[in-house]
Amino acid sequence: MNIVHDQSVESFLDALASKSPTPGGGSAVAVLGAMGAALVSMVANLTIGKKNYEAVEAEMLDALQAADQLREHILSLVAADIAAFDQVMAAYGLPKETEAEKLSRSEAIQLGLKAATEVPLACAKLCREVILLSRSVAEKGNRNVISDAGVAVLSAHAGFRSAVLNVHVNTGTIRDAEFVANALRQLEAASTNLDELAEETYAIVKSRL
Amino acid sequence: MNIVHDQSVESFLDALASKSPTPGGGSAVAVLGAMGAALVSMVANLTIGKKNYEAVEAEMLDALQAADQLREHILSLVAADIAAFDQVMAAYGLPKETEAEKLSRSEAIQLGLKAATEVPLACAKLCREVILLSRSVAEKGNRNVISDAGVAVLSAHAGFRSAVLNVHVNTGTIRDAEFVANALRQLEAASTNLDELAEETYAIVKSRL
Repeated sequence: MNIVHDQSVESFLDALASKSPTPGGGSAVAVLGAMGAALVSMVANLTIGKKNYEAVEAEMLDALQAADQLREHILSLVAADIAAFDQVMAAYGLPKETEAEKLSRSEAIQLGLKAATEVPLACAKLCREVILLSRSVAEKGNRNVISDAGVAVLSAHAGFRSAVLNVHVNTGTIRDAEFVANALRQLEAASTNLDELAEETYAIVKSRL
Repeated sequence: MNIVHDQSVESFLDALASKSPTPGGGSAVAVLGAMGAALVSMVANLTIGKKNYEAVEAEMLDALQAADQLREHILSLVAADIAAFDQVMAAYGLPKETEAEKLSRSEAIQLGLKAATEVPLACAKLCREVILLSRSVAEKGNRNVISDAGVAVLSAHAGFRSAVLNVHVNTGTIRDAEFVANALRQLEAASTNLDELAEETYAIVKSRL
């Protein structure tokens, strides 16, 4: 079952709240990013073809296409996050009687943790793209729905900062120092000026309310 | 149809992204708050009954009960937000030929705008409660799922700041100055120290990763 495809919002939240470890924060992060992307699409959709917004039509069409693609991509990470968690859990469940078993179990755990790091890292990068894209609709989108551009940037920014936590959770237990350094370097690159960018976009929205 | 009860997460996001004005940012705000509450419940659920967490069991049971109620309450605001929007749109559609019609249409619009203000105001207050509650699970919850407490506070905080935008959108066009002043006073009270509280909780989570 694909939880975002087959379950209602209410059921998804019930599952999130439950004792079951998945869906967990990783899935919530993807929903935050996807919700941000969806709201960028909404503002673009409600700007395209509207009077007084002819001059920004081409830019809004580009934003719409980019946001639709981002949403699809980010939402696919819910399943990827659950799969990575299951991989880690399966590795922990491997036999550990002999030395050979211990070694192969430990390697499987490390592989799982790497997969579980790649997902929030990808999510963080995509959330950054949503934040960059929200600037365009915040500045030039239809003023009647401009608050939605603000919700978009806040949601994607919460997604980004949540993804950071989920990367750090995993990197703490990965022994491959090069992998960890590389992941943290990518995360830092994705963080560049992001808080400021998000706050500026929020301020732009407030000024256009 | 109740969109959060009957539609998948994916369909909800499709509807959010579409040209249709509902569901819009107001519904997204409620989902942000409800997702925060769900994650508080999750951390509490995965702390209750666990070894080394006996001392905080009672507090986690309280947090779980409060978070479950908050989630249900916040999620009910999705339907309330759509109903308020429809009320405003219906009012704009009233006849405006005679002076009497103009007056009664204008009054209906004002009533609709007040309803459309009450919903995000209620949502902001509930998101504040989720943020306060997330502190408890961030400080005392099971360290294995502590990142989820961080996602909880970020999601609820994004919900709060989004709700602020949605209140301001409506108060700008409400003529009843006393109603507006009262709404903004309530919003300011709900904002007290909230950014600091959210950042402190995020920092607590980071320190316990």
